[in-house]
Formats: sequence, structure tokens, C-alpha cells
Amino acid sequence: MINNAPIGVFDSGIGGLTVVKEIMNQIPGEDIIYFGDTARLPYGSKSRKTVTTYTRQIVRFLMNKDVKAIVIACNTASAFALEAVKSEVDIPIIGVVKPGAKEAAKTTRNGRIGVIGTVGTIQSGIYNEILSKTNPMVKVFGKACPLFVPLVEEGLIDDPVTFEMAKRYISVLMDKDIDTLVLGCTHYPLLRKTIRKIVGEEIVLVNPAYETAKSLRDVLVDNGLINDSAHKPNHEFYVSDGAEKFRQFANTILPCEVKETTDINIEELG
Amino acid sequence: MINNAPIGVFDSGIGGLTVVKEIMNQIPGEDIIYFGDTARLPYGSKSRKTVTTYTRQIVRFLMNKDVKAIVIACNTASAFALEAVKSEVDIPIIGVVKPGAKEAAKTTRNGRIGVIGTVGTIQSGIYNEILSKTNPMVKVFGKACPLFVPLVEEGLIDDPVTFEMAKRYISVLMDKDIDTLVLGCTHYPLLRKTIRKIVGEEIVLVNPAYETAKSLRDVLVDNGLINDSAHKPNHEFYVSDGAEKFRQFANTILPCEVKETTDINIEELG
Repeated sequence: MINNAPIGVFDSGIGGLTVVKEIMNQIPGEDIIYFGDTARLPYGSKSRKTVTTYTRQIVRFLMNKDVKAIVIACNTASAFALEAVKSEVDIPIIGVVKPGAKEAAKTTRNGRIGVIGTVGTIQSGIYNEILSKTNPMVKVFGKACPLFVPLVEEGLIDDPVTFEMAKRYISVLMDKDIDTLVLGCTHYPLLRKTIRKIVGEEIVLVNPAYETAKSLRDVLVDNGLINDSAHKPNHEFYVSDGAEKFRQFANTILPCEVKETTDINIEELG
Repeated sequence: MINNAPIGVFDSGIGGLTVVKEIMNQIPGEDIIYFGDTARLPYGSKSRKTVTTYTRQIVRFLMNKDVKAIVIACNTASAFALEAVKSEVDIPIIGVVKPGAKEAAKTTRNGRIGVIGTVGTIQSGIYNEILSKTNPMVKVFGKACPLFVPLVEEGLIDDPVTFEMAKRYISVLMDKDIDTLVLGCTHYPLLRKTIRKIVGEEIVLVNPAYETAKSLRDVLVDNGLINDSAHKPNHEFYVSDGAEKFRQFANTILPCEVKETTDINIEELG
């Protein structure tokens, strides 16, 4: 039965686990196969061509695992590669950008939306593109925050250095009088508390990870793909480097215990 | 004539340009072929296995360009992969660790040496291994500084945030009463001014890039490989991603103008 097949989820590394967490919360009956491209992370500073090549390799890996749907749980890969790979597979494939953008368009009152993300995501202009289609009246202000990912990976989640960098990055958006801020990189929800301190209580923070899990559920329902078997869901984790380090980090994020992570050579497989 | 052949130099990205700069200064008659693995950088957080695989691919690329000698201008790749690839090629191949370690052993007066580097370099224990062989009396204190590379790549060379992180990283070494500090990552010489502010004037900073160029000259002389033709030296630059961005950065570092940088697919070539 195809609706009992797993969902494939991937990211350049650990950030996509924030999306996995939301999927586990919102559609707990689904099996998940996760791939983190830890050997080649980060994607955020790399070109469209390179990120698209990597995305194709990973999609092929997940297709070989007979997944019924794929989630690109990385804003940069969603921005650069989703459209290209969509036409190459015959199962539903969604990214994190559209769900986040749609929610931001619904949320804003004054039509002024800030987006923070990697250099790749911001330079791609994808949030602006999708938001303008949804509502031509909105104004989008993007800001790349290249140090956020290394700061999170260093564990400086709640630290004066992270606060200082966040203030520099986000104050230019505050000056634009935004009322909504999209956390346009899957690492950023981990900095939510620091970001909240800077933007205050009035500004709505949109977490695309949450919206993506909602969107995935809708797609599965629409396609008759919800897993309705009575079983303990199975979660498999694969990475291209540093399986044990990944496993430990995953256990600090996910609501279930990750017992095993497998190292694979994605270049050879692709 | 083999002694008119170029020298191959490589790094995970831009850091190795500090070594190229020293080679250009110290052996200006040499042709150079540089490869920066910008698609897969950084190496510093990756495993021995992955870094060795990448190093092998790049060595093969340089061998196909008929280089007469190879410099691994990256501490992490030198630490993890030099010994493995040395036996696989029939030309001289040197890393940046040994030249830096030897200089530190010569310099220290109290036998207490600090080393800063990536997680990979520090965890490998390679500086300790080589320094202990050179002089069993020295004590080596290592400290990984994972945010230094992203801070340099963000251009925050002289910035309060960089100063704060440097203070945190280096103060633990100062507490050990070191009199010599090895800048064990090719990016770090770019932070020399900030590091100098923290360590004061008394501590000697060892720059392996400088020592490596000296060591390369010795190797070329010993093997009769010095380029003695009267010609304008030729420098070629290759990267695995973002050629134009690399070219611009190279022009801020090198004493000559880099007019062209070529994008290649190192995975396919390897």
C-alpha cells in the first residue's frame, strides 16, 4: 500500500529536524526517512547550480527508498531547486518556502514583511516572488544572516554574541516598519527566543517548519496518502558525514529517541 | 622540463590563499595551480574519512595538471589526509602542519605552546604528535575556534564580535601560560591583529603559511625542482563553486591580479 510508505525529508544538515519535529507532532502516524547532507553543508552560501546538483542526488536516494512524498526541509534548496526537481518525480514534493510565505501573507496587517535567511535564499528573491503572487500589495524586505547557522551549530543559542549579531541583522528590518518576520532558514526557529527579544511582542514570527508540516498533511489528505495503519511509526536517519554527532543533536530536538543514524556516500549513490 | 612545471596548491576554500601569497613572495618564479573546494567547504567540522576522500579527488585533479609538487594549504586536510595520500603520489607533497609545528618548537622558551584551529585539526591531535616528536619536553594546549572561519568569510575581520569570540577562545590558552601560539588554520592569519590585541606583545604568533612556503622552497631546492626559466609566472585558479566571488576575494589577498577563476565539478572529475 503506497499510503503506508514513508515520507522523505532532507536538509543540508540538522536544520531540517525542526521540520521533522513538526511533522511528528502534526501527523504522528507517518514513517519518515531523513537525510542530512552533513558532508557538504552549509548550502546557504553556495550557488544555484551546486545546490540543485546536490538536491537531485538526494531526491534520487529518497526515491530509491520508495517514499510516497518528499519534503525539502531547507529554504536554500527549496529556493534554488524545488521547481527544477518537481517535474522530474511523480510523487508530491514540497518545499518550506511556499507554506511560510503564504502564512506571512495571511498574517500581515500593514503589508510589510521581513524575511531572514541564508545568502542563497535571500539573493534568490523567492519569498518576494511568491508573496507578490499571493498579494501584489505586500512589500518584502530580505536580510541574509550568514552567521546564524554557525552560531546555532556552535551551541550559542542564548548568548550575548548571538544577540549582538541578531540585533545588527534584524534592526535594518525593524527600520522598515515590518509587522511580520519570516524565519526563512530551518535553523532559525532555534534562535526564536533571541529574535523575540529584539523584535518585541508586536511582530509576528512565522515559522515555515510549522506551516510546512500543515501543508504536508493537506497534500497527503488530498492525495489519499495518509498512513492509516495501526503501527508504531518508523523513523530512519541518514547523513553524509558524522552520524554520531548528528544522532546526539537530533536527540536534543526531536520528541522521540533517535537510536541510530547511518553514514552513506551520497556522491557515489547519486 | 619538470622543474618548469607548476606547483599545485589546494584548500577547502579561500584560506589557502594566505599560503599562495607567501609562496608568491618567497619563490616568485613559480607557476601555481590553485584549487579551492568552495562547494564543500568548510572541512574543519567534517570527519577524517570525508576529508580524505575529498583530498584524494583534488590530488588527482592536480596530478592531471602535471604539477611537480603539491601543497595541502589546509590544516584540517593536512592533519587528516597527508599521510594517507603521500604514499599514493610520486611527487613531493607537503602540508601546513609540520612546518608550523617545527617553527613553534624552535621558538618557544618555556616549552608551552598553544594551538588554535578547526575542530578537525584540534581533535586530530596532530600538532601535539609532531611537536612531541620534535621535542618531548614541550607541552601543547589546543583550542578549537569554530566561529573564526565564518567570521572571516563574513568580513568581520576587525569587529567587536570577533574580538569577543577570540577572547573566549584564546583566554583558556593564556591561562596555561603559553609563550607561543600557532595559528593552525589558514584563515587565521587574517585575524592576526585581533589575536595580537588579546595575547599582547610577549607571545610569539606562528603563521604556518609563512613556514610552509619556506619549507616548499627547501623541498624544491633539494629535489632540483626550482623553476629557473626567465618567464612571467603563470597562476591558475579553480574552484568547485562561486568562481566570481572567489576571484574578488583573491584580489583582496594576493599581491598580483587574479583575472580569471574557473568553476569545475570536482566530484565528476574525481
